[in-house]
Amino acid sequence: MEKVNIKLVLEYDGTNYHGWQKQKNASTVQETLENAIYKLTQETVRVIAAGRTDTGVHARGQVVNFFIKKKLALEKIKLGLNAYLPADIVVKKVEEVPAEFHARYDAKKRIYQYFIKFGTTAIYRNYCWQFFQKVDRDILSDLASRIVGEHDFSAFCRIKTEVKNKVCRVYESYWREEDGFSIYCIVANRFLHGMVRSLVGTMIDVARGYFTIDQFNEILQSRNRRQAGISAPARGLFLEEVIYN
Amino acid sequence: MEKVNIKLVLEYDGTNYHGWQKQKNASTVQETLENAIYKLTQETVRVIAAGRTDTGVHARGQVVNFFIKKKLALEKIKLGLNAYLPADIVVKKVEEVPAEFHARYDAKKRIYQYFIKFGTTAIYRNYCWQFFQKVDRDILSDLASRIVGEHDFSAFCRIKTEVKNKVCRVYESYWREEDGFSIYCIVANRFLHGMVRSLVGTMIDVARGYFTIDQFNEILQSRNRRQAGISAPARGLFLEEVIYN
Repeated sequence: MEKVNIKLVLEYDGTNYHGWQKQKNASTVQETLENAIYKLTQETVRVIAAGRTDTGVHARGQVVNFFIKKKLALEKIKLGLNAYLPADIVVKKVEEVPAEFHARYDAKKRIYQYFIKFGTTAIYRNYCWQFFQKVDRDILSDLASRIVGEHDFSAFCRIKTEVKNKVCRVYESYWREEDGFSIYCIVANRFLHGMVRSLVGTMIDVARGYFTIDQFNEILQSRNRRQAGISAPARGLFLEEVIYN
Repeated sequence: MEKVNIKLVLEYDGTNYHGWQKQKNASTVQETLENAIYKLTQETVRVIAAGRTDTGVHARGQVVNFFIKKKLALEKIKLGLNAYLPADIVVKKVEEVPAEFHARYDAKKRIYQYFIKFGTTAIYRNYCWQFFQKVDRDILSDLASRIVGEHDFSAFCRIKTEVKNKVCRVYESYWREEDGFSIYCIVANRFLHGMVRSLVGTMIDVARGYFTIDQFNEILQSRNRRQAGISAPARGLFLEEVIYN
């Protein structure tokens, strides 16, 4: 029997999940979604995600795909999954895609944003890094522009990782101010594990005078994670969008 | 010994509180704040708020005042209270004000906003009403404009209320679209208990065809709460700002 390849666009609040990827003894977005798909279709599926977000990281535009046998109207899949999913995971879009579509391998660009509140916030406390020290915003902008282009980001990658190739092509990298937040936006073909949080933490370390700009360049060139600065907390990070051809 | 009158501007996420006002066997914002003040000053104070928000209602600009004996630098009060308060209540501003200042009686205008998402959202699920039925946005705007001016809002007030005078002067009342939300903004000299949620719910009832516009006018003129429509859920409501002379 022919299977149908279904692509979803998901929004989720990562606060209460141990990240995307299924694991023992911890609630994850993948497992929660696979359970909802099972309730809707009585089929056990494995869902592939474009970006395997870490514990506490949020998504406004995660893209996933999976195969089902059952023929269901796309609107029924959307309403059905949203009915079975908890309120902190939402299916925004459902599409039928060709059998060869792969949410991770076919993604051409991913857009992440990191939100910093220089001060305190109660309403957005789970969706940003509340930072109290003085930082130089011009330095942040300068550093962000240095990341654009093709670089080996080994220095900004978790040490325990199986991925060999650490080269990423960064298309856009900049800071902007919006609604009282300082937002770092980065668009790249791929991201290493912990890369955005490590980049943000290190940029902040320079902007508050802990490292110099020259040291930032050296860290990037060192390809050694032990050189980089702190890792910014997960709750400020959003997977905003995944772009395909 | 001379007491000092302290004015605070507060932001809070109302999700985990049974509203502002102190009550038995339930956690409230007032009680949580008074406990933090006690930890900082060893003084038992009674805090007066400009708007006594209901269970689940949020504030970005609640204003309160209280009297303390202890002389403390304003910055110390801010840092100290924020250290003792949980993460979902934040002191944004501290001022010393004249002894006669009263956060509730002296307020000239209050600004509330109500957020509706016509669709689903995971990230903002505690901060808006997710509404799925079709509504006529032009009708919403028309109705909002009818509320401007001085009216007896008895029809939009909780039945069990001790307040006799139900006349409020509405300075501004309009809907706007922002970041995918439909936001109702209302500025008035005073608000009755449950007024904004009841206004929003009734406007939505007209905009989805349950009531006619003529019926809306009749409800407003009826001064009878039993005439009005549904009450919009608390989680969409924000006390944005309180204005003094």
